[in-house]
Amino acid sequence: MAEFRKNLIVFDKPPQICSYAAVGGRKEGAGPLGTYFDFIHADSRFGADSWEKGESKLQEETIRTAVKKANLSLEQMDLLICGDLINQCTASAYCARNLGIPYAGVYNACASMAESMIFSSVLISSGMMQRVVCAASSHFCTAERQYRYPLEYGGQRPPSAQWTATACGAAVMGIDGGLVQIKRAFFGRVTDYGITDLTNMGGAMAPAAADTLMRYFAQSHTSPQDYDAIVTGDLGKIGSTLLGELLAKENISLLGRHLDCGKLLYGDWQDVHAGGSGCGCCASVLCSFLLPRLAEGKWHNILFLATGALMSPMSVQQGETIPCISHLLHLQTGEGR
Amino acid sequence: MAEFRKNLIVFDKPPQICSYAAVGGRKEGAGPLGTYFDFIHADSRFGADSWEKGESKLQEETIRTAVKKANLSLEQMDLLICGDLINQCTASAYCARNLGIPYAGVYNACASMAESMIFSSVLISSGMMQRVVCAASSHFCTAERQYRYPLEYGGQRPPSAQWTATACGAAVMGIDGGLVQIKRAFFGRVTDYGITDLTNMGGAMAPAAADTLMRYFAQSHTSPQDYDAIVTGDLGKIGSTLLGELLAKENISLLGRHLDCGKLLYGDWQDVHAGGSGCGCCASVLCSFLLPRLAEGKWHNILFLATGALMSPMSVQQGETIPCISHLLHLQTGEGR
Repeated sequence: MAEFRKNLIVFDKPPQICSYAAVGGRKEGAGPLGTYFDFIHADSRFGADSWEKGESKLQEETIRTAVKKANLSLEQMDLLICGDLINQCTASAYCARNLGIPYAGVYNACASMAESMIFSSVLISSGMMQRVVCAASSHFCTAERQYRYPLEYGGQRPPSAQWTATACGAAVMGIDGGLVQIKRAFFGRVTDYGITDLTNMGGAMAPAAADTLMRYFAQSHTSPQDYDAIVTGDLGKIGSTLLGELLAKENISLLGRHLDCGKLLYGDWQDVHAGGSGCGCCASVLCSFLLPRLAEGKWHNILFLATGALMSPMSVQQGETIPCISHLLHLQTGEGR
Repeated sequence: MAEFRKNLIVFDKPPQICSYAAVGGRKEGAGPLGTYFDFIHADSRFGADSWEKGESKLQEETIRTAVKKANLSLEQMDLLICGDLINQCTASAYCARNLGIPYAGVYNACASMAESMIFSSVLISSGMMQRVVCAASSHFCTAERQYRYPLEYGGQRPPSAQWTATACGAAVMGIDGGLVQIKRAFFGRVTDYGITDLTNMGGAMAPAAADTLMRYFAQSHTSPQDYDAIVTGDLGKIGSTLLGELLAKENISLLGRHLDCGKLLYGDWQDVHAGGSGCGCCASVLCSFLLPRLAEGKWHNILFLATGALMSPMSVQQGETIPCISHLLHLQTGEGR
């Protein structure tokens, strides 16, 4: 690929993350991060009469909780930027309808949370908006029947498969009032390593994370040693190993610094095979575990890279390979400046 | 609904539209705007082996043409922001893969072109990026079989139905080098008037356009008389009439100023019933007809409102109504400042 113009965004006035919330399902509650979530629901329909409507409810509760934790009201939000995996992003659309906030929908599959936070950061840092709320959700049951098989069919999952998280993360951003700020942001480009296996998303997405990291390090003149942690979205076990191998070829080592939301969300005892996935995976890990660690001063400086696989079942049926993308945020605390 | 904070964006440094291009299919070429398009293709697959892959090709050609008309190269683009109607927005994803530009996908159905241009405007005006290319596409054959019936079935179309445009519009934006600039931008909120009829999109979307217009006029302290034209996205005949009625109740008259892209794209002789629709409808009309009229000085000052219906076939099957949104841009020429 040709080398493109420098597209790193550095915020002179870093936008801040004022509050955040994460809500999940039963399996997420039973995982290692379960106690960090704001709410866990045993009902996979979240009180609605379908999984799809339930995912909207999940999003709505997460967003309302984040806004409340910032001691703000919905009326004080200038914009909601959010996304999900359901066809036509309906979880987000119906949630936005119920909240009544001006709304911009994004879709970059599981990279949607990072995308929404970058757009939000630009709106806040430039002074064009004062408060923007970002969110992303996914749901095992809505994703499984849309992308793979009807749940009743009980399709076998190969070891490379990941488990779509039933979870949502939401963050309220503003120019002040937060302990964590966004210092840099970086939009990734689409990479495609020719993978066609819909049950190996981690393997398909790792090259996108590698491409974004390599270009980010080059453009920011930083290296892995400059960060307390480098957290990828949902590469899972296979994708995380592959990311290490791809970076090793370029003499970049993330040793001791790399974490992956897909590996953090579930325990080995939970039978999720290669790890978690879905927009809600990295969004909820960010808003339940990563941001609190920064706010509590355990970390000062991390990179957060969401990764997304941009195929559809139809594109794969038509013989296409899986194009992937990864967007990056550099998060820091006051002390990390 | 509660009245939200003022969310009008006014650009102190207005971003400019440096170049634009529109490409369409045979029906669009046979319409009143056919001669304004950059390219018209008789092959509905655009040289690919499926309609979906063809829509990616359509997007790619339109974006390459717009970039070329700006005397720029793809390598000079900081970001591509685009969207389409195919599940998981694959037309955009595969196009972005082939172009290699950093990519952010948006989804607000047929309001996607306006959404991408607002994000692009913010990135440019704030100085965080220098050149961003925006695009949106739709395709009659990909949309019809996804949202309604297999084409081979030959389903009857009621008079209220609109024809999804096989078209794409793309615009390159920067801080200088253009004749048309974006002075204000406004994100809409989701409105839902309880319509469930998937063959009456115009009727469903008109309240969203009305809501955005009323709030925009109030917040910008302007009135219809301040603009040479007020152009809605794809309300078609029924939606346009309804918009007039909704605004009349608020004592707002667009008389003599209102145009609708869904009515402009096709002629009465083309049997499209209520008019055109699809992301590519307003995007291509903008990039073939509206922007040239501004650039040539025939207009100095217009409002462009894309409108989107955010349902999915599944959400309607589950008994949901159709939520809609409309985002607005205030476009002006040097003389209109």
